[in-house]
Amino acid sequence: MLIDLNCDLGESFGPYTLGNDEEIMPYVTSVNVACGLHAGDPMVLRRTLRAARRLGLAVGAHPGFPDLQGFGRRNMDLSPQEVENYVLWQIGAVWGLAQAEGVVLQHVKPHGALYNLAARDGALAQAIARAVASVDRSLILMGPAGSQLVQAGLEAGLAVAAEAFADRGYRADGSLIPRGQPGALVTDAEEVAANAVQIAVQGKIRVRDGSGAVIPLRAQTLCVHGDTPGAVQLVRSLRQRLEAHGVHVAPLRDVLSAGAV
Amino acid sequence: MLIDLNCDLGESFGPYTLGNDEEIMPYVTSVNVACGLHAGDPMVLRRTLRAARRLGLAVGAHPGFPDLQGFGRRNMDLSPQEVENYVLWQIGAVWGLAQAEGVVLQHVKPHGALYNLAARDGALAQAIARAVASVDRSLILMGPAGSQLVQAGLEAGLAVAAEAFADRGYRADGSLIPRGQPGALVTDAEEVAANAVQIAVQGKIRVRDGSGAVIPLRAQTLCVHGDTPGAVQLVRSLRQRLEAHGVHVAPLRDVLSAGAV
Amino acid sequence: MLIDLNCDLGESFGPYTLGNDEEIMPYVTSVNVACGLHAGDPMVLRRTLRAARRLGLAVGAHPGFPDLQGFGRRNMDLSPQEVENYVLWQIGAVWGLAQAEGVVLQHVKPHGALYNLAARDGALAQAIARAVASVDRSLILMGPAGSQLVQAGLEAGLAVAAEAFADRGYRADGSLIPRGQPGALVTDAEEVAANAVQIAVQGKIRVRDGSGAVIPLRAQTLCVHGDTPGAVQLVRSLRQRLEAHGVHVAPLRDVLSAGAV
Amino acid sequence: MLIDLNCDLGESFGPYTLGNDEEIMPYVTSVNVACGLHAGDPMVLRRTLRAARRLGLAVGAHPGFPDLQGFGRRNMDLSPQEVENYVLWQIGAVWGLAQAEGVVLQHVKPHGALYNLAARDGALAQAIARAVASVDRSLILMGPAGSQLVQAGLEAGLAVAAEAFADRGYRADGSLIPRGQPGALVTDAEEVAANAVQIAVQGKIRVRDGSGAVIPLRAQTLCVHGDTPGAVQLVRSLRQRLEAHGVHVAPLRDVLSAGAV
Repeated sequence: MLIDLNCDLGESFGPYTLGNDEEIMPYVTSVNVACGLHAGDPMVLRRTLRAARRLGLAVGAHPGFPDLQGFGRRNMDLSPQEVENYVLWQIGAVWGLAQAEGVVLQHVKPHGALYNLAARDGALAQAIARAVASVDRSLILMGPAGSQLVQAGLEAGLAVAAEAFADRGYRADGSLIPRGQPGALVTDAEEVAANAVQIAVQGKIRVRDGSGAVIPLRAQTLCVHGDTPGAVQLVRSLRQRLEAHGVHVAPLRDVLSAGAV
Repeated sequence: MLIDLNCDLGESFGPYTLGNDEEIMPYVTSVNVACGLHAGDPMVLRRTLRAARRLGLAVGAHPGFPDLQGFGRRNMDLSPQEVENYVLWQIGAVWGLAQAEGVVLQHVKPHGALYNLAARDGALAQAIARAVASVDRSLILMGPAGSQLVQAGLEAGLAVAAEAFADRGYRADGSLIPRGQPGALVTDAEEVAANAVQIAVQGKIRVRDGSGAVIPLRAQTLCVHGDTPGAVQLVRSLRQRLEAHGVHVAPLRDVLSAGAV
Repeated sequence: MLIDLNCDLGESFGPYTLGNDEEIMPYVTSVNVACGLHAGDPMVLRRTLRAARRLGLAVGAHPGFPDLQGFGRRNMDLSPQEVENYVLWQIGAVWGLAQAEGVVLQHVKPHGALYNLAARDGALAQAIARAVASVDRSLILMGPAGSQLVQAGLEAGLAVAAEAFADRGYRADGSLIPRGQPGALVTDAEEVAANAVQIAVQGKIRVRDGSGAVIPLRAQTLCVHGDTPGAVQLVRSLRQRLEAHGVHVAPLRDVLSAGAV
Repeated sequence: MLIDLNCDLGESFGPYTLGNDEEIMPYVTSVNVACGLHAGDPMVLRRTLRAARRLGLAVGAHPGFPDLQGFGRRNMDLSPQEVENYVLWQIGAVWGLAQAEGVVLQHVKPHGALYNLAARDGALAQAIARAVASVDRSLILMGPAGSQLVQAGLEAGLAVAAEAFADRGYRADGSLIPRGQPGALVTDAEEVAANAVQIAVQGKIRVRDGSGAVIPLRAQTLCVHGDTPGAVQLVRSLRQRLEAHGVHVAPLRDVLSAGAV
């Protein structure tokens, strides 16, 4: 049993610091670096890539909407063609800096509102998959388990990784309870760790709709967060719990290789 | 005798059109595409790369200062480290879109104030050369003949191309007469064409300081402009004149290969 | 009979020119100046305000979404609170430059996607009306005839102006045929002028849905455009036609004052 | 004896928080709010203005260079005309939001690189003074004691306020020791408080060049900082020390009024 732990990093900008990148890095295996349109800048990217290389972490591009002020979390009505070109641009920008650090990109994961829209909008999902495949067919496309994004990646002939969230509540149909609604966030460290184990070991999750039903949730990577108080401690205990249950935490490419057997 | 004709293109942005890209393209051999910080956007870049590919033109990245409002023509006081990272970023962004069009980048030429500062500031020149070498050692670095930028490229082990301007006035020390001063611009089509021939055939230029002296000016590429009235006609006649004098107009890489003999 | 002719101006940015501001200005009575988030910059604004003052035209702020690349025409999912603050900001920015030109602002008209959304979304419309009323209760709020925006302005105690389009096709319910659908644009100068007269004299418009029905359309201002080929000629003939039918073209405030009688 | 304490606030942006605005506010009398080009956004501005109003603090606009990534601390080569228009724009943007909070602006203080350049460049200083006078002749222009900026304000007929820094080292000519050089920063709370008292009570400061000389330094306002560890405690003790020496800490307008006697 293997699983990848991924985290969004490199989200600082100019004079502004966001997240605890240095503290969270030792506990994850894949990092998604912001590409400068919704967060991040060339100096931040360079530092983040260097730190990832030193720790031996796998790196992915984390493209988002061109909306720094809204942190890429506000829906924007872009055409698939616009999304494709913005994503190409952002992957390329990260690639340029990665070249200078000798880092080879492992994956691409859309950010925020783009991630959420592409999960259910096939045309946007295909636009993203086209962009990824155009840049480098060996890149892994990461998307929510069971989403249009994963489907579009498969159809484009890409390796794909299904992502799950141990700190978010799921509904019976496998979708996330939207932020702001009851049950959306799992804040209890014990419960988060239990969810992680259930996903990694059984490929299942207990839904948070009151029914207590357990649904299938197969994922190759778990998303963890580094920007809230207590986040680092929570990720550390989650990782320990996974390993205590015999789950090996490894970079995404290794997880996919193992899964291919 | 070979020489490359290069032109800055892809400078439109969102709803704004700049230049006559489609009209000038048939007369040049290398295009420098804006990277989105001083001009250009992902949609504009994609269109420009596609048109260049269809016409078989060589493509370079044209990075500049992060100042869209000032079109990258206002000096900004950036550290060499900042310049290096901004340039990496911009080359990468163009590379990402070029991948989608099957275009392999040929060269990098800094834009506007960055070009002018790096021509005489060794630290900035070295920062740019480092960035180019980090991304891909086979990229050609383009800079003004006799500049720190060309020197830095050579020291970084890059192929370099010296650039000259047939439509600008030179001083006795080989530098350009600054815009806004008498003699800075050569607007007579006949004189521009004569300058081009003198540079390409003799490796010399007549200075515009009243002395009428002729100085050496060896260049592998001539910069032409497409954004002024009559520009296209001027470039067409310049190219015809070159060919009439036995100068073959060819992409930069071919010019450098021939020169290496 | 009086009517105002308004036009969106000041949409150039940095090195980029958009529209034929100087040519269209002599034919309109109110100008809506872009505020820098979707178009326009401080230098462009200053020039536009100066030209408007010299021609004695009334000036309004034309706030839009913070999306220069999309020209404010892409929907963005902003909260009413965000919209209120962005609008306050933009009116203020124009006001600052207007102070330097001795221009007193007459009105506010939202731009592009913000205009369209606020036409039918009461919460956004109220946010805009709150912003306008907060800045200066004597500002006129301009919105499409029959819209939530006009309604919100009235409820906020503002003077409001209903706007109509002589060069757009209307549906039977009084809404515009969306761009991209058949009948959306009226390009025949004769038909545009006839529409203008019908709106100004009769307060009616013939719908373009094939039925040929005539519906009420009461408006105090007509929007004209200056950024298409032939636009200036079209506006000139429209204005001549209005005057030939006894319609006096006058700034919005005069139209409203007359209407108040 | 009266003196004003001013602090730069409202420098957060979108998802990014900078400074400890809420904690520092109770100890100052004038706040300089960022205008969105080098820091700040409409939501941040609104919150900052509201908090200032509730605490009864005087508010000023804090315009800077259009360089969010560089926090307005990188020199940009703008013409005086550009600076004038950018400043008008920024004062206006703050004014728009201030109207919504019922706040009347008291002063204008340039930020960062613009402040430093305008301190010694008469043309830039005059451009800023022109902008301030154009918007509202009752605004106070704040600049470093003895600077071109103060001089330009006086020549433009504005009320001006000379600013001093208790936490920075001065040279014998009255200029600040540049950041990065020995003695530039005074970090000892005791010394900062002693400097403040010396400035407020005696109008003098001991220079930090080794000579121990004491030079005149007349100022109506002291700049304090809220964005470093221990900043709040330092400002609190500075204010207590001032009051213990009989210096009344009051908003700038009151200080100037008292001084006029």
